[in-house]
Amino acid sequence: MQSDHQDLGPTNVLADALLTDAYEFTMAYAWWKNGMHLRSAVADLYFRRNPFGGAFTVFAGLAEVIGFLAGYRFSDRQIRRLRILLPADTDARFFDWLRTCTLDQIRIRALREGLLAFPQVPLLIVEGPIAQLQLLETALLTLINYPTLVATAAARQRLAAGAHKHLLEFGLRRAPGVDGGISASRYAYLGGFDATSDVKAADLFPELPIAGTHAHAFVQSFFSLDEVDLSKFVTANGQPFDLKAATLNYRAQVAASITHEGELAAFLAYAAAFPTAFLALVDTYDTLKSGLPNFLAVALALHEAGYTPRGIRLDSGDLAYLSRQARASFKAVSLRFSVPFAALTIVASNDLDEKTILALNEQGHEIDTFGIGTRLVMPGESLGAVYKLTEVEGRPRIKISGDTAKITIPGRKNAYRLFASGVNHSSPAAVVDLITLADEEAPVPGRPVLCRHPFDETKRVRVTPSAVEDLYTVVWDGSPRREALRPLDHIRADVLGQLAHFRQDHLRAVNPTPYKVSVSARLYDFIHDLLASEMPIAEIG
Amino acid sequence: MQSDHQDLGPTNVLADALLTDAYEFTMAYAWWKNGMHLRSAVADLYFRRNPFGGAFTVFAGLAEVIGFLAGYRFSDRQIRRLRILLPADTDARFFDWLRTCTLDQIRIRALREGLLAFPQVPLLIVEGPIAQLQLLETALLTLINYPTLVATAAARQRLAAGAHKHLLEFGLRRAPGVDGGISASRYAYLGGFDATSDVKAADLFPELPIAGTHAHAFVQSFFSLDEVDLSKFVTANGQPFDLKAATLNYRAQVAASITHEGELAAFLAYAAAFPTAFLALVDTYDTLKSGLPNFLAVALALHEAGYTPRGIRLDSGDLAYLSRQARASFKAVSLRFSVPFAALTIVASNDLDEKTILALNEQGHEIDTFGIGTRLVMPGESLGAVYKLTEVEGRPRIKISGDTAKITIPGRKNAYRLFASGVNHSSPAAVVDLITLADEEAPVPGRPVLCRHPFDETKRVRVTPSAVEDLYTVVWDGSPRREALRPLDHIRADVLGQLAHFRQDHLRAVNPTPYKVSVSARLYDFIHDLLASEMPIAEIG
Repeated sequence: MQSDHQDLGPTNVLADALLTDAYEFTMAYAWWKNGMHLRSAVADLYFRRNPFGGAFTVFAGLAEVIGFLAGYRFSDRQIRRLRILLPADTDARFFDWLRTCTLDQIRIRALREGLLAFPQVPLLIVEGPIAQLQLLETALLTLINYPTLVATAAARQRLAAGAHKHLLEFGLRRAPGVDGGISASRYAYLGGFDATSDVKAADLFPELPIAGTHAHAFVQSFFSLDEVDLSKFVTANGQPFDLKAATLNYRAQVAASITHEGELAAFLAYAAAFPTAFLALVDTYDTLKSGLPNFLAVALALHEAGYTPRGIRLDSGDLAYLSRQARASFKAVSLRFSVPFAALTIVASNDLDEKTILALNEQGHEIDTFGIGTRLVMPGESLGAVYKLTEVEGRPRIKISGDTAKITIPGRKNAYRLFASGVNHSSPAAVVDLITLADEEAPVPGRPVLCRHPFDETKRVRVTPSAVEDLYTVVWDGSPRREALRPLDHIRADVLGQLAHFRQDHLRAVNPTPYKVSVSARLYDFIHDLLASEMPIAEIG
Repeated sequence: MQSDHQDLGPTNVLADALLTDAYEFTMAYAWWKNGMHLRSAVADLYFRRNPFGGAFTVFAGLAEVIGFLAGYRFSDRQIRRLRILLPADTDARFFDWLRTCTLDQIRIRALREGLLAFPQVPLLIVEGPIAQLQLLETALLTLINYPTLVATAAARQRLAAGAHKHLLEFGLRRAPGVDGGISASRYAYLGGFDATSDVKAADLFPELPIAGTHAHAFVQSFFSLDEVDLSKFVTANGQPFDLKAATLNYRAQVAASITHEGELAAFLAYAAAFPTAFLALVDTYDTLKSGLPNFLAVALALHEAGYTPRGIRLDSGDLAYLSRQARASFKAVSLRFSVPFAALTIVASNDLDEKTILALNEQGHEIDTFGIGTRLVMPGESLGAVYKLTEVEGRPRIKISGDTAKITIPGRKNAYRLFASGVNHSSPAAVVDLITLADEEAPVPGRPVLCRHPFDETKRVRVTPSAVEDLYTVVWDGSPRREALRPLDHIRADVLGQLAHFRQDHLRAVNPTPYKVSVSARLYDFIHDLLASEMPIAEIG
């Protein structure tokens, strides 16, 4: 039965059926031993709090989940390992059952990958035999928590930088492991970045553009101009051209004082290797006194030879100030030499994140491209999505907690995004996500629907939607539903479209307006009847 | 030449020669194009700041680095991909060179894996042709940054918990990707943890003990005692035994009020599955009113049947208070029923980290085992190790920065750990790491050596070491040096040994004393002569 989807699988082959917490196996065994392992159950995978102090989250990781499920099986080797890893007195027939375990009884509904998502609205709803459903828990969380976190960080950095800036992901070296780096590249792109430095990620995901020029090591590796062999350099038209002489001539005109010769040699060598893509890292010795004039000298010589230079990268210092100075130089050189240098690219990197981009915006800067690494791949917090049982054998389950944010919304459910025009007849925008019981009718455009806060009886709103979006599609029904697998480019465009069309007060970096997540009147009563019957009454005295 | 180490390789097969930043290839190409790619070079991989506000770091990732290098080659498929990924006008002969690229000219010295390490002291020193050395940069950083960070977090949590507590790693579900989770398990163990919940990690690293019992979902999946089939339950001696009747009898004696029947059913089912390893999660409904008495009832019945129950897990609430209450119950039950329950295990989990463990210690607790997840696998910061060129063709290279902490110590170097007895003739302890030029003689026990701060001329100390440890061994010399590959258990024991024997003021959680990292008098002069010749003199006016 797996034969029809053997082309699907996880990116990392280590994501196999053993990728789970030990207690998933001990629970499965205890259910099996008690004859309960095939009980039908429903589990919701959801998060309780948007990351980064924000009011939205970008759902990511679905394609990887489907690949994982498509490859899910217990091989003989894995069964042998489990026999060693589980307690020695584990009944051998349990392993016989595991060996026959397929996911043909599992059904999963999910939000579409790239959808803006909100606390309490399940990202995945998993239905099937309880033991199998539980065995999937850890891997599903692992495959969604980090991708969703990175995609959200990327979308927030995109919002901070603005729609027209170029965003590069540079995080591999600081990434949490090999596929941490690879998935950070993929999900940064999904969340709105333009390219990555990670060659392996681009190898695996061909939609990913790669970017990269050179590091300080390249500049430091040159000592003098004598080291640069430009004898074979030709113009864009194939004519011999003395790039070194032209560069020295321009340097005499643009440099106020002596520039670093090794740096100039490095720029020349780099320009000779990539005459159509000359972008120089200018801060190795002194950005304004050496790097920038050396760049301009080589760029002017390249231009004379018929090539279009790209620009510079700043990797230290006051990026706002240096970028303004660089832009002023570009404009001055444009006028003085009648060259189209005013809009040369200025790339900035060096521990950038959403906050530093917002600070740069306030200071005023001339940066075109932001290179972001550490704070994208190691975002400093975690999503903390959870996977909770909501129904067993048709009976709702609720996890009670003193903290209402930690109470699970019980039962099999649906969810809808309701759109409405604003008070000033602005264009329709998403106003609320409504969770209902699975057997309720879907909301209908034009018909008012009562939306209640799941736990606060005072918070109710009647919404007459102009449009209704059913949030779930079936992504696994014993086998993969391939229509859920959208190209990475489409998902990215979808994210960018939502960032443009969602109400901006939900998206802003500081003090965003929370987006409403409500339940239907029937689900509200259902939750509170269940709470009344299950919740112990505290006794005092 | 690869044939003698084909048994070695990376844990994650995605860690291949394409796992690098694009600019490593563009730099390699520019050097190759300029005929400089085979220049001999030296690069240091080091970090500038200990993580977590601490004064020490645990070096980890070396075995993985060696596996990566052993598998390093450009396959035809990878060359084809690179031809697409690099600019279209890249000279085809560059790819011919890449195809022949092996690491037989690369030599790497490293600290031993598990060594306590300090800022500025290189973790790895890589020597070889500059283009190959540069192509390795990103992967080496990726394979060391996260493992070292996790091992350090684990060691700090070990110090916080104390040597005799049990530490479990539970982080897979919150881990940054699949092998983020797997490597977190491995390096948490290396840093002093006792076990992991991650079955896949234990599959890959057989030294890793796994641990796990059950989750709330298991407890919630039961509604009543009728669901539990105990007809086949037998005592430790194989005699039929009515576990349910015995449990109900004990419950009547230990529970002050009615307990949750579904929870009791779940505990019975779990005990029947694992009679020799009964450990119950007691906080699903109400820890003190339901979970704890239900556990005690089943535990007493199991004891009557000849089994030894293990204990409980607390996953919410005031862990200090609840653990003290649980311990008091265990002691009371021990006395009342003459059972050896006083020392039953109390496991605590729920967003634990170093700080919460220290806070629990202050409050007083009775926890035996800490389960730690999120804050171990996503430590909230990154190590930020860097890889800097220190020599090219025998000429020292220095990266100048206004921030002295960012200046690279130039040249080919050695490093030694000097041990000395304290002022009160305490047992010898490590007092300073001394970095020297590679051609200097090693310090000798009993002979005084001047140790200088690399950048602050006022900080000098003369040390007469009682012992000297040469910090580097060759781990790669064209091929792997297998003696550098130590079993995980040995590395862990090494870490725990150092945590016990290092001066405790360097290890403490708050305001630790910085450990001295010095340079020899010759290296000091070498650095400062180079700075004087390379550093631009700022001009004012």
